[in-house]
Amino acid sequence: MSGVRRDGLRVVPLGGLGDIGRNMMVYETDDDMIVVDAGLMFPSEEMHGVDYIIPDVSYLEERRSKLRGWLITHGHEDHIGGLRFLLQRLPAPIYAARLPQGLIRLKLEEAGLLDVEQVTISAGSQINFGQLSAEFFPVAHSIPDAFGIALRTPVGLVVHTGDFKIDHTPVMGAPTDLNALARYGQEGVRLLLSDSTYADRPGHTMSEIVVGDALEQILLTAPGRVIIATFASQIARVQQIIDGAEVAGRTVFPTGRSMEKNIGMALELDYLSANERRIRDITEHRHVIDENAVIICTGAQGEPMSALSRMASGDHRDVTLKPGDTVVLSSTPIPGNEAAVNTTINNLFHRGVDVLYSGGGHEHVHVRGHAGQEELKTVIGLTRPQAFVPIHGEYRHLVMHSRLAVSMGVPEAACHIVLDGDALELTKDQSEVVDRVPASYVYVDGVNVGGVDHTVLRDRRRLAREGVVVVVVPIDHQTGELAGEIDLVAKGFVELDNSPTLRDAAVEHVAERLRRDPHPVEWHALENMLKRQISTFLYREARQRPMVIPVAVEV
Amino acid sequence: MSGVRRDGLRVVPLGGLGDIGRNMMVYETDDDMIVVDAGLMFPSEEMHGVDYIIPDVSYLEERRSKLRGWLITHGHEDHIGGLRFLLQRLPAPIYAARLPQGLIRLKLEEAGLLDVEQVTISAGSQINFGQLSAEFFPVAHSIPDAFGIALRTPVGLVVHTGDFKIDHTPVMGAPTDLNALARYGQEGVRLLLSDSTYADRPGHTMSEIVVGDALEQILLTAPGRVIIATFASQIARVQQIIDGAEVAGRTVFPTGRSMEKNIGMALELDYLSANERRIRDITEHRHVIDENAVIICTGAQGEPMSALSRMASGDHRDVTLKPGDTVVLSSTPIPGNEAAVNTTINNLFHRGVDVLYSGGGHEHVHVRGHAGQEELKTVIGLTRPQAFVPIHGEYRHLVMHSRLAVSMGVPEAACHIVLDGDALELTKDQSEVVDRVPASYVYVDGVNVGGVDHTVLRDRRRLAREGVVVVVVPIDHQTGELAGEIDLVAKGFVELDNSPTLRDAAVEHVAERLRRDPHPVEWHALENMLKRQISTFLYREARQRPMVIPVAVEV
Repeated sequence: MSGVRRDGLRVVPLGGLGDIGRNMMVYETDDDMIVVDAGLMFPSEEMHGVDYIIPDVSYLEERRSKLRGWLITHGHEDHIGGLRFLLQRLPAPIYAARLPQGLIRLKLEEAGLLDVEQVTISAGSQINFGQLSAEFFPVAHSIPDAFGIALRTPVGLVVHTGDFKIDHTPVMGAPTDLNALARYGQEGVRLLLSDSTYADRPGHTMSEIVVGDALEQILLTAPGRVIIATFASQIARVQQIIDGAEVAGRTVFPTGRSMEKNIGMALELDYLSANERRIRDITEHRHVIDENAVIICTGAQGEPMSALSRMASGDHRDVTLKPGDTVVLSSTPIPGNEAAVNTTINNLFHRGVDVLYSGGGHEHVHVRGHAGQEELKTVIGLTRPQAFVPIHGEYRHLVMHSRLAVSMGVPEAACHIVLDGDALELTKDQSEVVDRVPASYVYVDGVNVGGVDHTVLRDRRRLAREGVVVVVVPIDHQTGELAGEIDLVAKGFVELDNSPTLRDAAVEHVAERLRRDPHPVEWHALENMLKRQISTFLYREARQRPMVIPVAVEV
Repeated sequence: MSGVRRDGLRVVPLGGLGDIGRNMMVYETDDDMIVVDAGLMFPSEEMHGVDYIIPDVSYLEERRSKLRGWLITHGHEDHIGGLRFLLQRLPAPIYAARLPQGLIRLKLEEAGLLDVEQVTISAGSQINFGQLSAEFFPVAHSIPDAFGIALRTPVGLVVHTGDFKIDHTPVMGAPTDLNALARYGQEGVRLLLSDSTYADRPGHTMSEIVVGDALEQILLTAPGRVIIATFASQIARVQQIIDGAEVAGRTVFPTGRSMEKNIGMALELDYLSANERRIRDITEHRHVIDENAVIICTGAQGEPMSALSRMASGDHRDVTLKPGDTVVLSSTPIPGNEAAVNTTINNLFHRGVDVLYSGGGHEHVHVRGHAGQEELKTVIGLTRPQAFVPIHGEYRHLVMHSRLAVSMGVPEAACHIVLDGDALELTKDQSEVVDRVPASYVYVDGVNVGGVDHTVLRDRRRLAREGVVVVVVPIDHQTGELAGEIDLVAKGFVELDNSPTLRDAAVEHVAERLRRDPHPVEWHALENMLKRQISTFLYREARQRPMVIPVAVEV
C-alpha cells in the first residue's frame, strides 16, 4: 500500500472497534507513527480454548521504522493487555501516567521484558514525535490516572478522549479537564475521537461519590462481616471502601491475587491511603470480630476461579461464608458475563448470606465508568470538531454516537464510523477512508500466539457439538482389501456406545463398500472415502454429524 | 420411600426450581396425584450439543397408578414443552385452557401423540381428582389464557399462582382475579405457591397497554418499513401490533416459522382479531409500499436461525433490510442471551437500519410478564397463607420472595425454599421437608432422550477446549513389537501440525517406550499406556491437554 501523503494524517484502528474489546489506534504521517493504547480482548464462549485475542499488527510491522511510541490512556487490560505480546516485535518507548506504568511494569516483568523504556507522563505533559506531538489531559474514569490525548498533527489538532465520564466530584485524581477541552475548541479541533461505550444511554452517569455514600451506609449498618467484590483495578472504589471502613471501625482484608497485588502497588505508589493497620492480611481476619471486618475481593464478574466464586462455592481457603454476612457486588456485568454473575449470586444465597447487587434494588453500589449521552454532547459542544470518529464501543454505540455528533452540527460526511483496518486519511479540509489494511484477530491459546485459527476453532466447535468418531480400517498393502476387523472409537458421541446394532451396521456399511471396490486406491482417497461413508451413514441413521477421523492402516 | 400419610399432602418440585427453567410441581395424597405444568429447559452454553433438558420423572413413574392428570397453567414452553417427551410413559388427561391446549396439540401432533385426552378448562372450572380438586382462576401474564390453580386438599386450600403479574388493563383476557384470591383468603389458605421471577425488583410491573401506545407511535411515525421482533407466543403483543397497524394504515406481514404458525392458530381460535387483508403472507410484502408495511418476526432473543437474525445477517429469503427501516426489539434478553441479542443489534445497525430496544433509551417497547415486589405482596396480603413456597425463579429470587412473605407475617418456619426433589409434607398444622426424591436432569440431544450424560458432556467440553489427538500404533500380534510407523492425527489441536519437531519427538517418545518394553501386553493396558505417554508428553512439551485416543492395530 502507498504511504501517507505529505502533510496528511492517517488514522487506523487495529484494536477491535465495533466490538467491546481491546483498543488500539494508529496515528501516522509520512515520517512518523504513534499508537494510542494496545489492549487485548477476552474470547467469547464459542472461541473454545482461546485465552486472549490480540490485534494483528502486520500493518505496524511493515512500518516499524516509523514507530515513535506507544501512548497509553489508562491502565485497564483492554488498553494495556496487548503490550506484553507486541513489544518484542515492535519496540518503542511506552508513554503513560504513573499508575498505568506501574500496572504495565507488573505485566512486563511476568513476560521478562524489562528493558523497555517507560516514560511517565502527567497532566499537561507534551511529547514530540517528529511531525506529531502529544499533550495529555486528565479525564475521570473508573481507574485513576486516566488521560485523554490532544495530538498536534500536520492537518490540525486531534482530540482522543480515551475512556471517560464527566465526574465533577471524582474520588481521586482530577475531574475530566473541561477547560482543556474548551481551549482545544478555541484552537480549533480538526478531529474528535470520543468514547462511545454508553452512547445509547440517555442522561448523565452519576458521580463515583454516590457509591461511596452507599458503601459507607452498608459498612455502618450490616450486622456481620461485609464482603465487597469489585474490579482489582478500580482503585478509587477501594479507597472508598477503606474510607467507609475507617468511619465504621472495620478492618479491611483484601483477597484474590490481583486484588492483593493491585492494592499493594497502589499503596506503594500512594494511590491509596490508609491508616496504620487498617488493611491487614486475609489470613488474620479471624482475629477480628465479624462486625469489625470488611473483605475486598475480586470476582464481581462471576469469574470462575476468583475469590468471590470460591467463597460462593464454599472452597475459599480463608473465608467461609455464613448467615449474617453481607456480600456486595460493586459492579455491573460486562455484556456476556450475565449468566456467570447470576450463578455466583445464586450460590451466595445458597450460603445463607445477604447479597446486595445493582439489579436487585441496590442501584447505588456501582456507577458506570463511561459517559452517557449528555456528557458526550458536552464534549462535542466544547471541542466543536470539524470531523468526528466514535471509538470504544459496539457497532451500535458508534452509530448512535455519530448521530449525536450530527445532531450537534458536525457534517454527516465528516462523521466516520471506522472499523478495524479502515484507513482514514485527513488533509486540512478533507477526511475520507482511502484504504483497508490487514487488521484481523490473533488468538492466544496458552503460550501459543497465533497458532489457533478459524479452522481450528471450527473443528473445536464441531467436536464440542457432536463429538468425534475414529474409524480404524486395516488394509492389505498389496491387494487393497480389508485385512482385519474395522474398529470404531467414539468420544463425546453416544449413539455408537448405546446401540450395538448401529455400530455393527456402520462397520458392515464400510466393509461392504470396501468389498465392492477392493482394488488398491490412493491412500488419501481411501481415507476420504471412509470419512464420507461413515459421515453419511451416521447422519442417515442417527441424524448426527460427529467429526469423523479415518485411519487406514497398512498391514 | 414411604407413601404419603393419610390426610396429608406431599408437594414435590421436579421442574428445575432454583434455575430459570422448566416447571413441574407434583401434588400427592395417599391415593391421588396430579402434576402442575411440565416444562422443558434450554441448555446453557457449556452443555454442548444438548437441545433440551427435561426433568427426571422416575418419581412419577414409580407411582404412575396414582397419576390423575397434567394441569397446565399457561402455554409457554417452560410449562408445556416437556409433555411431548413424558406423555407416552405417563399417560393422563391434560387440563388446560383453550390457547395452551392449542399450542400443546401442535407439539403432540409433531410427536405423533394424538390419542391423548385434552380437557379444556376456563375461569372457574372445577375438576375432581379423588382427594384433590382443582379450581382454575385467571391471571394476567405475557400470554393469554393464563391461569392459577386453587387446589382443595385434605390439609386445606393450596393456591398455586403460576406465572403472573397484576395487570389491571391487560390487552386481552381477564386481569389477575384479585377477588378470587380474596375469597381464597377468606376461606383460609393452607399454602401459597407464588411466582418469584422478579422478586428482586422493587415496585410494580407496568401494564401491557404501555407497550401498545409505544408501538402505535412508532408505527405512525417511522419513515419506512417497521420490523417488530417478539416471542411467537406473545399473542397480546401481536394483537397490539395489529391494532397499531390498523391505526397507521400498515399491512402486517408475519415471518418466522413459529410466528406464522402461532398467528395462524390464534386467528383460528379467535385469540387474535384482524380486519380482512390486514395480515398477509410475507412473500407479498413487496407489493406494499414501505410506509404501509409492518413485519412481525421471531428472533428478539438473538436466536441464530430466527427470522430477525437472518435479516440482520442479510440472508432472509423475503426481507432485505435497508436504510429507512426501523427495527423494534419488543422484549428484553432472557439471562444468558444478552451476548446473542447484542450481536443481532450490532448486525442490524450494520444494515443501516434504525434499531429501537429497551436498553437503548426505548424502555416502553416491552414490559415484563411477571410481578414485581408490590404485586407479590398484594397476593400474599389477599391470601394470608399459613405456609409459603416461592416458585419459578432462580435461587436468589426464591430467597427474596420468602423474605417478603416473612416480612408480611408468614412464620419463617412455614416458608419453605424447596428445590427439585425436596418432598414437602403438610398436615393441617405442620409443614416440613421430609425426604429427598430422585430429581435430576435428562438431556435431549436431537432424537436421543437421556443418552447424553455428564461423561459425554465432559468429553465434549474437553474436545472443545483442547481438541483431539489420535495415536495409531501398529503392533506385531505375535511379538508385541512395533510393526510399522506410528501415526498421529490431530483435530482442533494445532501444535502437532505447526511443529514437525514436536510431532517427531512425540512419535519417537512412544516408539522408544515400546522398544524398551516390547513383550506382549494386554491390549487394553497397551492402549492406556499409549494414552498416558502421549498425554504426559504433550502437556510437558506444549502445556496442552488434548483428548488422546489410542488405537493399537494388530498386524
